[in-house]
Amino acid sequence: MEVTRRNFKESLNAVYSALEEADFLAIDGEFSGISDGPNVSALTNGLDTPEERYSKLKKHSMDFLLFQFGILSASQMYITKPFNFYVFPKPFNRTSPDLKFICQSSSIDFLASQGFDFNKVFCQGIPYLNQEEEVQLREQSEERRHQHANGVGTPSFISPSSKGPAHVPEEHKDFINRVIFVHMRSFYLFLIAFFCSFPTRFQRKLIYQTLNWKFPKGIHVETVETEKKERYIQVIKVDDEERKRREQQKREREQEELNDAVGFSRVIHAISKSGKLVVGHNMLLDVMHTIHQFYCPLPEDLQDFKEVTMCVFPRLLDTKLMASTLPFKELITNTSLAELEKQVKESPFKSPQVETAEGFHSYDTAQQQLHEAGYDAYITGLCFVSMANYLGNAHDRADPTFKTLFLMRIIDIPYLNVTGPDLQPKRDHVLFVTFPKEWKTSDLYQLFSAFGNIQVSWLDDTSAFVSLSQTDQVQIAMNTSRYAESYRIQTYAEYVKGKHQNKEKLGQTPKSWGEDGWRKPHYASATSAATFGYPRYTLPDDDEAEEKESPEGNDAEGTVTWQQAPAVHGRKGQKKKKSKGVFFF
Amino acid sequence: MEVTRRNFKESLNAVYSALEEADFLAIDGEFSGISDGPNVSALTNGLDTPEERYSKLKKHSMDFLLFQFGILSASQMYITKPFNFYVFPKPFNRTSPDLKFICQSSSIDFLASQGFDFNKVFCQGIPYLNQEEEVQLREQSEERRHQHANGVGTPSFISPSSKGPAHVPEEHKDFINRVIFVHMRSFYLFLIAFFCSFPTRFQRKLIYQTLNWKFPKGIHVETVETEKKERYIQVIKVDDEERKRREQQKREREQEELNDAVGFSRVIHAISKSGKLVVGHNMLLDVMHTIHQFYCPLPEDLQDFKEVTMCVFPRLLDTKLMASTLPFKELITNTSLAELEKQVKESPFKSPQVETAEGFHSYDTAQQQLHEAGYDAYITGLCFVSMANYLGNAHDRADPTFKTLFLMRIIDIPYLNVTGPDLQPKRDHVLFVTFPKEWKTSDLYQLFSAFGNIQVSWLDDTSAFVSLSQTDQVQIAMNTSRYAESYRIQTYAEYVKGKHQNKEKLGQTPKSWGEDGWRKPHYASATSAATFGYPRYTLPDDDEAEEKESPEGNDAEGTVTWQQAPAVHGRKGQKKKKSKGVFFF
Repeated sequence: MEVTRRNFKESLNAVYSALEEADFLAIDGEFSGISDGPNVSALTNGLDTPEERYSKLKKHSMDFLLFQFGILSASQMYITKPFNFYVFPKPFNRTSPDLKFICQSSSIDFLASQGFDFNKVFCQGIPYLNQEEEVQLREQSEERRHQHANGVGTPSFISPSSKGPAHVPEEHKDFINRVIFVHMRSFYLFLIAFFCSFPTRFQRKLIYQTLNWKFPKGIHVETVETEKKERYIQVIKVDDEERKRREQQKREREQEELNDAVGFSRVIHAISKSGKLVVGHNMLLDVMHTIHQFYCPLPEDLQDFKEVTMCVFPRLLDTKLMASTLPFKELITNTSLAELEKQVKESPFKSPQVETAEGFHSYDTAQQQLHEAGYDAYITGLCFVSMANYLGNAHDRADPTFKTLFLMRIIDIPYLNVTGPDLQPKRDHVLFVTFPKEWKTSDLYQLFSAFGNIQVSWLDDTSAFVSLSQTDQVQIAMNTSRYAESYRIQTYAEYVKGKHQNKEKLGQTPKSWGEDGWRKPHYASATSAATFGYPRYTLPDDDEAEEKESPEGNDAEGTVTWQQAPAVHGRKGQKKKKSKGVFFF
Repeated sequence: MEVTRRNFKESLNAVYSALEEADFLAIDGEFSGISDGPNVSALTNGLDTPEERYSKLKKHSMDFLLFQFGILSASQMYITKPFNFYVFPKPFNRTSPDLKFICQSSSIDFLASQGFDFNKVFCQGIPYLNQEEEVQLREQSEERRHQHANGVGTPSFISPSSKGPAHVPEEHKDFINRVIFVHMRSFYLFLIAFFCSFPTRFQRKLIYQTLNWKFPKGIHVETVETEKKERYIQVIKVDDEERKRREQQKREREQEELNDAVGFSRVIHAISKSGKLVVGHNMLLDVMHTIHQFYCPLPEDLQDFKEVTMCVFPRLLDTKLMASTLPFKELITNTSLAELEKQVKESPFKSPQVETAEGFHSYDTAQQQLHEAGYDAYITGLCFVSMANYLGNAHDRADPTFKTLFLMRIIDIPYLNVTGPDLQPKRDHVLFVTFPKEWKTSDLYQLFSAFGNIQVSWLDDTSAFVSLSQTDQVQIAMNTSRYAESYRIQTYAEYVKGKHQNKEKLGQTPKSWGEDGWRKPHYASATSAATFGYPRYTLPDDDEAEEKESPEGNDAEGTVTWQQAPAVHGRKGQKKKKSKGVFFF
C-alpha cells in the first residue's frame, strides 16, 4: 500500500491492524545520500572499531533525508501486508523549524535510474516530528492558548506599554484610522491584509494595539491564511459566548493540526510499542536514521545509542548478518539483498509460501523493483522466512533475538551487539603505517612484498592499516622498518595505546584485552524494555536482568555461528506493559 | 521550450540561434533553498554593506542547487523564444566529484505547491561542469591516453614492479589460471566480471599484471559498463592496426562524453560570448549561482566577484532595481515580479506586443505559472519591454547599461554597482545597540520612545541597528545612555571604526566619508570585456578605459533616477572580439 500525505490519516488504522497481527515486521529506508564526508570506502574502514563506525556514520550520514520507508507485516505463515511510505519534513508553520537536508548526486542519480518518484516525496511526503519537537510544539500551543485567554490576538505584538491608547505617530494615523475605524463601522466581519515586509511590521503592531485598546472584550482576532499563502488578520465582533465557542473550535483545530504534524512518527511509535520482531537487511543506517528523524537526536556515545535503539526497536534482526553467519555463510555466496533473494528460492532453501493480503500491492519478485523501500522490506521479509524455515523455527514464535546489527566491511567484527559490549579482536597481525602522501596501494604492496599477501585498509592520505597474513612476521616487519625515514610502522596495540592516551584526558580508561582475542564482557547487560517515550539512559531494571546475553559463540576465524546463539524467550516485562499502550495492545 | 538531458544535444543549435538573434535576453533560476544559516530576514539586514551582503550570500546560499534555469530570447520587437532548462549535477563517472547539495524544506515545499516537477530535475536534469572541472577532466583523459599508449589497461593497477611476471600468491593461482589462461585459449573475446568488494581488488590487480606480462602487445583491454551498472574487463586479442582503430574510437567516444558532461555550462558560455544584454528580476542570487555552478567558485572578495560577473555577463539589467528607481518608483507600488507584471500592463504603461516564435511554448500570463524559471524569465522580459517602452528607448539598440544589481532589503544602498565602487551612505542617524538577549523589538521601541519613530535592524540576539528619524537626536540618545548598565549605544561611525580596526590587521585601510553622504569614487572603473574563459583579475585594458561610469545620479533621499543615467553606447572592444568566438559571431 502506497501511503502519502494524501491518504495517511485514512490509512493509519490499516497500519495499526497490520502491526498488531504481525508475527514479524520487515523494514527498509531509502535516503537522499550516504556520506557527506569521505567516500564510502573511507567511511567504512575495514578495521574500524564499532565506536568509530558509529561516530563516522553519525557525523557523515545523518544530514541526509530518509524519505521513503517500507514496512512489511507478515502474519499467519504468511499473509503479507507491504506498506511504502513517502516521508518529507514539510514545515508545520512559519515559525516551526525549517529543516535542511543534503542530497548526494550519485545517490539521487542512482534512485532516479531505478524509477524513484521524487515528486511523491516532495509534493506528498508525510510530515513528522521527533519527540522533542512534538513536546515543544504542544507547549507553544498551550502557552498561546493561555495568553490568548487574557487578551486579544497575537501577544507578541502587544507592547508592554499598551495599557493606554497606542501612540500612533502622525504619519500612520491616516492608515490606522482607515483600516480600523472606517472598517469597524461599516462591516461586521473584515479582513486586514497582513503586509509582509518590515515597514508594516510597525503598522501591524499599531493595529493590534489600537484594537486591544478600543475593543478589549468585544472582538475575536485571528490570523488566517488563504490557499495562496496570503495572510490576513480576521477581526470579528462577537459576544462572550460566541467568542468562547470560536476559541474552543480553534483549539480543536490546532490539536488536530499538531497530530498531523507528528505524522509518520506515529507509525514508528506504534512499531516500538508493538514490541514485534523487526527484520532489516544491513539495517544499521536504517535504524540510525529512524531514531534520528522520528525519535530523538542521536546520542554521542555508542552505549547510549544502543539503549535508545532498544527503546525504539526492542527486537531486531539483520538478515545480512544472518546470511553471513553459519550455517548460511556456507550456503550463500553473495549477501546483497537482490542476490540473497534469488539464492533463498533455490535448494537447499524453499521458496516461502506467502500471499499478499487483499487491498495491498502484490509485488512480483520476477520484475524486480529494488530500491523501493516497500519492495525491499518485502523481499527482506521473504529472505528471513526462507532462512528461518531452513533452521526449522520460523513458525515458532519464540524469537531468534539476536539484537545485533551487521557492520558492513569490518574485517573482524561482523556485528554491533545492541544489548552488550562488542567484540574486540586483538588485531596483533595488524600494522599502522604512516607514509608520504604520494604513496599508493602499490607502494605498500612493494614495501611488504617479503611478507606475502597483505590487506590494506586506508585511513587517510598518509596512513593505513596493513594486515599481514601471519602474526609472527609482525616483529620482523617492525625490525626492518627501524631505520626507515620515509615511513613509520607501529603495531596495532601501540596505535590504540596512543589513541587512548589522547582520550584519557576526557576521562576514558584504556581497555584490556582477553587472552583469546575477544574481550570478555565486564557486565551482563539487560535487554531493553522501557516503553517508547522514555529512553533509559540510567541503570537497567533489576527485574529484567534475567535476560542476559553474552557475545555469540565464535569460531576461530572470528565468525559467529547462528545455531549456537542462545535463544532468549519471552519479553515478559514488555508484554506486561502492553496493555498500557494507547491503542489495541 | 522545455530542455532536459534527453533533448539537450538536439536543442543546442536552437539555443545558439536564439542567443544570436536576440535583442536582449532575460534569465531566471530556481533553487533548492535560500539560506542554510540565519533566516532570510537576518540574512538580509537592512544596513548590510555590499561586502557583508555578498559574503553572507556566498556563505549561506551557495550550497543550494540551481536546478531550473529559464532563458528568454527577444528579438525584432518582439518575437520571443522562452527556454526552460532542467539542470542536475549527474556524476560523469565513478571518479568524478560526487556533488552534495542542500535542500531547504520550506523552499522545496513552496516549489511543490507551485507544481514544480522534481522528477524532471533529478531524472532528466542536464549535467554541467565549471571551467576548472572541465579542464581537469580533459587533462585526466589526455593522461590516460598517454599512459594507455605505453601499455595495457588501467595503469593504476600496474604495480611499479610489474616488469617481470606478476607474483601470484598460492591461494590466487587457481583463480588467475582459470580466468586468464583457460579463457584466453578458448575464446577470442571474453569478459571478466569486475568484482566490487575489496578482497578482489587484489585479484583485479593480478589479472592486469598477468595480462600485461603475458600479452604486452597483442591485446586490447577496456573496462565496460552494462546498463545495469555491472562492470567488466573486456579483453580482446587484436593486431596492431585493429588496436589503433579501437583506441581512436574510444578516444572519440571519450571526447563526446566530455562535451556531454560540460553540458549546460555550454549555454552559459554562449550567453557570455554573445555579449547580449541580460535582464533579470532581483537577480543577484541568480548571477551568483550561475557563476558558482557553471563558471568558477565564487571569489572571496566583492571586487573580484564584480570582475568575474563582467566576464560572464558583460551587460546586466535588474528589473526590480529599474522598477524601484525614478520615474518608475512613483508609478509602481509593488515591485515583486508577479505584481510588476500586472502593473506594467496598465496605464501609463502599455502591454507590449509580443509573439511567441513557432515551436516554442506560448505562456499565458492570465494563467500564472510563476516560479517556473522559463515563465519567470518570460515575464521579466515583458516587464523590461514595458518599462523601456515607457522611456521610449526600447527599440533603440543602444543599451541602458546600468550594470547594477538590486540589493534586496538594504535601506539606503539600492544596488550593487558591478563596474565600480558602491554607494557608501553616512548613516549618521544610525545607532549600534547591544543589550541582553531577552530583549525584543518592543523593548527597543520603549527605550527610544522619546525619539519618535525608529527602524530596528536586528544583527543577532544581543545587537541591532536602530535608525532614528532625525540625525540631530543621535547626540541626545548617546548622552542619555551614558550611565546605562543593561545596554550600550555606539554611533554607526564608531561601530564601523571598531570593525575596521579589526580588519586593519589584515592589511585593509579604513574608508573615508564624503560630505554629501555618498562616498566619492576614487577611480573610474573600466567596464569588463575579456572573453569568457579568461576572468580578468588584473588591471583593466587601457583601450577600454574610455567606457567610464560614475555612480548614478542620486536624489536627496538616497534613491537613483533612471533617466539621469549616462547612456553608454557601443561595446566596441567587445564587438571586435566577437569574430574570435567558436560559433556564429
